[in-house]
Amino acid sequence: LSSQPSAASKPAPQEPVRNKRYDPKKPHITETPLTKKNWYKHVNWLNLTLIVGIPIAGLIASAWTPLRWPTLIWSIAYYFATGLGITAGYHRLWAHTSYSASTPLKIFLAAVGGGAVEGSIRWWARDHRAHHRYTDTDKDPYSVRKGLLYSHFGWMVMKQNPKRIGRTDISDLNDDAVVVWQHKHYLKVVLFMGLIFPMLVSGLGWGDWLGGFIYGGILRIFFVQQATFCVNSLAHWLGDQPFDDRNSPRDHVITALVTLGEGYHNFHHEFPSDYRNAIEWHQYDPTKWSIWAWKQMGLAYDLKQFRSNEIEKGRLQQQQKKLDQKRTKLDWGVPLDALPVMEWDDYVDQCQNGRGLVAVAGVVHDVTDFINDHPGGKAMIKSGVGKDATAMFNGGVYNHSNAAHNLLSTMRIGVIRGGMEVEIWKRANNDGKGQMIVKD
Amino acid sequence: LSSQPSAASKPAPQEPVRNKRYDPKKPHITETPLTKKNWYKHVNWLNLTLIVGIPIAGLIASAWTPLRWPTLIWSIAYYFATGLGITAGYHRLWAHTSYSASTPLKIFLAAVGGGAVEGSIRWWARDHRAHHRYTDTDKDPYSVRKGLLYSHFGWMVMKQNPKRIGRTDISDLNDDAVVVWQHKHYLKVVLFMGLIFPMLVSGLGWGDWLGGFIYGGILRIFFVQQATFCVNSLAHWLGDQPFDDRNSPRDHVITALVTLGEGYHNFHHEFPSDYRNAIEWHQYDPTKWSIWAWKQMGLAYDLKQFRSNEIEKGRLQQQQKKLDQKRTKLDWGVPLDALPVMEWDDYVDQCQNGRGLVAVAGVVHDVTDFINDHPGGKAMIKSGVGKDATAMFNGGVYNHSNAAHNLLSTMRIGVIRGGMEVEIWKRANNDGKGQMIVKD
Ligand code: HEM
Ligand code: HEM
Ligand SMILES: [Fe+2]
Ligand SMILES: [Fe+2]
Ligand SMILES: [Fe+2]
Ligand SMILES: [Fe+2]
Repeated sequence: LSSQPSAASKPAPQEPVRNKRYDPKKPHITETPLTKKNWYKHVNWLNLTLIVGIPIAGLIASAWTPLRWPTLIWSIAYYFATGLGITAGYHRLWAHTSYSASTPLKIFLAAVGGGAVEGSIRWWARDHRAHHRYTDTDKDPYSVRKGLLYSHFGWMVMKQNPKRIGRTDISDLNDDAVVVWQHKHYLKVVLFMGLIFPMLVSGLGWGDWLGGFIYGGILRIFFVQQATFCVNSLAHWLGDQPFDDRNSPRDHVITALVTLGEGYHNFHHEFPSDYRNAIEWHQYDPTKWSIWAWKQMGLAYDLKQFRSNEIEKGRLQQQQKKLDQKRTKLDWGVPLDALPVMEWDDYVDQCQNGRGLVAVAGVVHDVTDFINDHPGGKAMIKSGVGKDATAMFNGGVYNHSNAAHNLLSTMRIGVIRGGMEVEIWKRANNDGKGQMIVKD
Repeated sequence: LSSQPSAASKPAPQEPVRNKRYDPKKPHITETPLTKKNWYKHVNWLNLTLIVGIPIAGLIASAWTPLRWPTLIWSIAYYFATGLGITAGYHRLWAHTSYSASTPLKIFLAAVGGGAVEGSIRWWARDHRAHHRYTDTDKDPYSVRKGLLYSHFGWMVMKQNPKRIGRTDISDLNDDAVVVWQHKHYLKVVLFMGLIFPMLVSGLGWGDWLGGFIYGGILRIFFVQQATFCVNSLAHWLGDQPFDDRNSPRDHVITALVTLGEGYHNFHHEFPSDYRNAIEWHQYDPTKWSIWAWKQMGLAYDLKQFRSNEIEKGRLQQQQKKLDQKRTKLDWGVPLDALPVMEWDDYVDQCQNGRGLVAVAGVVHDVTDFINDHPGGKAMIKSGVGKDATAMFNGGVYNHSNAAHNLLSTMRIGVIRGGMEVEIWKRANNDGKGQMIVKD
């Protein structure tokens, strides 16, 4: 294979030139608004046939085709094999180079990946790199911002403007003989691996030629396609965002179950060159398990993995961000530097005139409405009114809980000029954010 | 009832004087170490009999006593009623005054609470206030620090030194006629509500006198005791600490199920005067539901509740604390102010001598070992070596993720003297803590 220097690897290969009639000088159809008259020109009829038409035909045909046990088992097994071709091959090996594979493994993955009928490695990985580099922007080939259905398969069924999609470097793929060969002979690969091979196995194996074609071929293709399309739709729509919530990727076990483990997509977009999608042993990631098994067999090597220190840093920053958002929504009391300054004598005077004020750590609090509710009793809190209650509040009488400190800070009305001021001021820097409890 | 000014309400009532032979001048038995010779003096035989002896006798007797359906149903119903006497009465009403009750409700709660055989309201609430005020210290009557079994019932089965237990203010209880009456007539209340009443119902109702005594009386007491004891043991041992982890109280649904809803104990210790234990509608807290129902019936009023702002502040601070602990365990790279200062020319020289250094935002990073692993390819990262790569790294070529920024900061080796220094220095205050991503 590697002795086949393909033509495709030579010209500057940034632009996809799959459609030979494409002329960059003429305005592309997507630059014309969709109307009642021209809508059919916007549709990619070939893809529509492959993705929707043939499966429907297959479904109809299946009504007359009995499903035999060996064919069912074989179809499911081949479903997993071709699915892995996409997830372990197209995606983790070629698009992300998250590990290296020996030539036999590469050929296997290029073959079964072709059997999933989702385009050549070269085309798929180029688009996928653009998806990562320009996630959620107009340059993202399957941006979920254009709708869930669009990200699922609308982007294939409707014509795309090749100029719109972000450019990415695929020089490494153009140097990979297996990729180049598969791209060049793509139609043959698809026909053979997608339909003929599953039919051959079923026909030569147990004589079920038609079942092999309908179930192992057409319907299996449909299921594998829909499952892997979920990585672009469901994985950008359903679940949590433990690492970064600025973009759409999400983690969810349902997506993982559907996509052979590609469901930890928030992690994946943050650490795309990690060969894993699920980092916990108990999470479902058969693609990772397969790569790991190939490594034990000497077929895969250089499995890339981010240090857990880096992963935990990302998780922590996202948690911090969430916490900071929550913090700004809560009432932490008037910030200390926004409080009026009071004289001590003024404070005492006001208390003698019946106001329920308590000075703690240089800050005056109006507890009038709280005296009757004080969990430690009316008498206790009244004994602090008009006095410096710092010590009583902080353990002299009762070492109040965090909750009590928080409550107290919402009752602030002033700062006392003088002695205690300096102490509280020093600690005030961290306040108003609620991050440290200002023990006032 | 309220016309009965009880003797007990007059003398300074801080000290429990339930044992008439107790003389504060003589050394208390607990001040003598436990030995083989004196161990029986350490045991509180009355409590041991009540809590362990009688239930065992009841269990044996039950072998000869057929359990009839109406008796079983009545025993379970009475179990809930007497349990509520403790949780809604003794605990939330009297120990914590988390709501107010009309006299009929008070009498009901004092009666069924007495039927649970856990001491008088006055004695129970005094100890419980000490438990909250001195949680986990030696002054805590049932500190879990002395062992799970001790906190469960060891503290009752072994004699206690009354001097050890923290003092609390119970003047409000001494002013409560129902409390005072129940304390004065405690033995009569216990005998009637604990044994005679359940037997009467069962005997007069469906002729099952013995079953009413054994199942509705003795065994029901045993189950109610063990269940409510769990508030002191299980609730300080099993579960999460969403509000404060400095002390032992914990939240767990199992504890809640066992204790009629007293299982959200971390919340409860932080907000003891809240009439709720569970704050979410879907959490199990039948005690809260009962209090709420009594309010609808006009029997309870002034239900106290902390503002959700205060509760969320507590939760947030605890989360922040956990996050800060995690943060210190991660490697955030050498803090900026601990880095050596380099000249620009020195940086360029070293790169020309083959070192893979990249300057981003005035900080020099050693990426030598990373060049081959760079997810954007060798060429990309090499193009930054020996240059000011700030712009390329931050979007000029590729707007790197958080993960890439984090990784970069672990590669720091120096700061460049001059131009960019000021900018990065300003933002450096927040760094090393990892709280803000220093976009360098
Ligand atoms: C000035 C404003 C005050 C506020 C906002 C306040 C708040 C609270 C709160 C929320 C509690 C419930 C337990 C806890 O969360 O720690 C409490 C309990 C208590 N407070 Fe205060 N308090 C104040 C002043 C005082 C003062 C001045 C004293 C004593 C002179 C005092 C003595 C007590 C005692 C003894 C308890 C324990 C109650 C118990 O659990 O038995 N408090 N306080
Ligand atoms: C100086 C230290 C560098 C580090 C630590 C670093 C790190 C990374 C990491 C972790 C990624 C994976 C995607 C991501 O997490 O964002 C990445 C991708 C990338 N980096 Fe860098 N990078 C560095 C320098 C550079 C430089 C100097 C350039 C360009 C001149 C560059 C260009 C790119 C590109 C284009 C990608 C996108 C790869 C793709 O998804 O196709 N990087 N970098
Ligand atoms: Fe994605
Ligand atoms: Fe990806
Ligand atoms: Fe407790
Ligand atoms: Fe309590």
